[in-house]
Amino acid sequence: MEVEIRLGSVRYPFRLGTDCLGAIVEDLVAMSASRLLIVCDSNTGPLFGAELVERLSPRVPANLLIHRAGEPYKDLQAVGTLADSALQLGADRASVVVAVGGGVIGNIAGLMAALLFRGIRLVHIPTSLIAMSDSVLSLKQAVNACVGKNLMGTFYAPESVLADTAMLRSLPFRETVSGLCEVVKNSLAIRPSMVEMLRTSLRQDAVYDDETMYEIISESILAKASVTEDDMHECRAGLVLEYGHTVGHAIEYTAAGGLSHGQAIGLGMVVAAEVSHRLGHLDQEAVALHRELLTRAGAMVTIPEEVDLDEVMHRLRFDNKRGYLADPAESSAMVLLGGLGEPLWHDGRPLVSVPMALVGEVINEIACPEIPNFELVSPVETVEEGRVPDTVGAADG
Amino acid sequence: MEVEIRLGSVRYPFRLGTDCLGAIVEDLVAMSASRLLIVCDSNTGPLFGAELVERLSPRVPANLLIHRAGEPYKDLQAVGTLADSALQLGADRASVVVAVGGGVIGNIAGLMAALLFRGIRLVHIPTSLIAMSDSVLSLKQAVNACVGKNLMGTFYAPESVLADTAMLRSLPFRETVSGLCEVVKNSLAIRPSMVEMLRTSLRQDAVYDDETMYEIISESILAKASVTEDDMHECRAGLVLEYGHTVGHAIEYTAAGGLSHGQAIGLGMVVAAEVSHRLGHLDQEAVALHRELLTRAGAMVTIPEEVDLDEVMHRLRFDNKRGYLADPAESSAMVLLGGLGEPLWHDGRPLVSVPMALVGEVINEIACPEIPNFELVSPVETVEEGRVPDTVGAADG
Repeated sequence: MEVEIRLGSVRYPFRLGTDCLGAIVEDLVAMSASRLLIVCDSNTGPLFGAELVERLSPRVPANLLIHRAGEPYKDLQAVGTLADSALQLGADRASVVVAVGGGVIGNIAGLMAALLFRGIRLVHIPTSLIAMSDSVLSLKQAVNACVGKNLMGTFYAPESVLADTAMLRSLPFRETVSGLCEVVKNSLAIRPSMVEMLRTSLRQDAVYDDETMYEIISESILAKASVTEDDMHECRAGLVLEYGHTVGHAIEYTAAGGLSHGQAIGLGMVVAAEVSHRLGHLDQEAVALHRELLTRAGAMVTIPEEVDLDEVMHRLRFDNKRGYLADPAESSAMVLLGGLGEPLWHDGRPLVSVPMALVGEVINEIACPEIPNFELVSPVETVEEGRVPDTVGAADG
Repeated sequence: MEVEIRLGSVRYPFRLGTDCLGAIVEDLVAMSASRLLIVCDSNTGPLFGAELVERLSPRVPANLLIHRAGEPYKDLQAVGTLADSALQLGADRASVVVAVGGGVIGNIAGLMAALLFRGIRLVHIPTSLIAMSDSVLSLKQAVNACVGKNLMGTFYAPESVLADTAMLRSLPFRETVSGLCEVVKNSLAIRPSMVEMLRTSLRQDAVYDDETMYEIISESILAKASVTEDDMHECRAGLVLEYGHTVGHAIEYTAAGGLSHGQAIGLGMVVAAEVSHRLGHLDQEAVALHRELLTRAGAMVTIPEEVDLDEVMHRLRFDNKRGYLADPAESSAMVLLGGLGEPLWHDGRPLVSVPMALVGEVINEIACPEIPNFELVSPVETVEEGRVPDTVGAADG
């Protein structure tokens, strides 16, 4: 399929196929780049980058730039190092940065393209489910700072996104589950019509055929595109995409690589659902649906004990949405749902100012599910399914 | 005076006064910032930053962030370090970055503001002549990469520019001359009506009263604003501001701090004028006027022997305008004048593709003024004045 992504005034094509590397090569050659800078991490370089460069370089100058894999290395220094390498290879204004990887590489290479010569062309080739279904449908190109995730960045549009579901076949369990958590987020926060499809398609072993992946990705893209079209800066309606991200980012940062991005966001969604329920907004059935879908996707719904909850609360103070608040010291700005696909709006934004004390209470209970209070808001059906298989804990521990 | 700067769709006020620090403080307080991040270098921190913070902090949270002074430290790492400090101090979306310094601090703080939370408010308080008269009238926020100047950056608009000519009283000779070279550039390339004013006002000792500085800055701003209004990205008419910058940047980079920015650009303009003359475009009188005005301003018009000319030629290959060329290996994209205020246009840009060999020939001759050819194009009057006082050589050596 080819979808035209619309983000405010920005338009770019998203091409999704299966076993379509040949078409991707043709698209890249057709860009008349002075040089293609293929940016990979240490995983995607050998898997996809090397073959791409091999097929491209007889027809256009192409170089492979490999960055160390992992969220901890997603910082401004990485951008500077890669840009320096690109310049030494002869990059100029007519060069094109091609990001081959997941969200981390997409962000690093995206910011690199935005800053090199104050902006050169960028193409995303997402190789993870989270990147295909979520992160490449954003103009946000951001890296981490010392005190929090994605605090340094800019808005920058790619020329195109070229995706091949075949690249997902080698994706580890942890990464597939990570992407599915964001898909679940899009279904709960934006597009409840996806819920039945997810209920039947999701598998706890995270083994999917190409057709199912294709459907999951297509639906998720349509969900996301529907809220970003009129909000390219994701500061109004698009903020709903931050569902689960306030607490999720804090958990992810605290876990320091121990949890995947999507898994952390999934836990953040469970917290957000509980908070919304206690504030009288979201009914128990919807809260239970959060746990059900995440569990079906193979994700955990309790915060593992390795995560330092005091640190999570501390990190919340650096969330990038806190500037929207009048009283950031005592409150946390969160996306909360009043119902499926129905975020609660305040002052023109889908954000609710939640007392830090309530967030802390819920986080503590979700980390310790034996506390009776937890059982009360969690229907029996979900508790049954909520028993996370050992393999999940091992993969994410 | 207050001028509304217009750069494409962007508008911001430029307020110029003398002894107006009180008004600057009021303007900053009126911004309702959650925190003012006063970014200085090790020179402007003690001179202006400390007093600003002292006067501001009873009324609004304000912190002084000091970065090591100098072009060699203008890189992405500096931006990251300052941003990390700001975040640790509690910066959020409602904070304002206040750049107090010359072009280097303006660029570093400008890029920091552009990237923090994907863009927070920015105010420029330029403290050097070059910043007041030139660099703050630009949306370019860029830092250096390993192989060249200003290769990494973005376009970002300040909320306002607040300037006080009193801050120029402490400016060293070298910096005053640096700013005047850019003023001379604006007069030659854009606004020849300034030439007579400059002829009578410029002083080789670079000692000016407030009124003269005020006039020089005002005129230079009007010159620059006239070409950027319809070209906020400086990729069409605004490229004329790059006059002297192709060779100038290469000289500046090679001199590694030995020459001020403006002085290097001044030398770049002399090269550009000679090149244009040899290509049959610019007459001898106009070439001589370059040397005359620069000399009157206290600048050198020959490349000092410490500058490695082979390195200058090598650096030219990394100039950020080379992507505009069809054959970048053998040519250099330069702004050339056909007459005063009349850049030569090709393919919709004020850029001429000049053979590298010709650039090299002229650079070598301008570095060795004893070659007869140099005397021919330089009228007697200018040669007389062109004898640079020893003090200048010492200041720039």
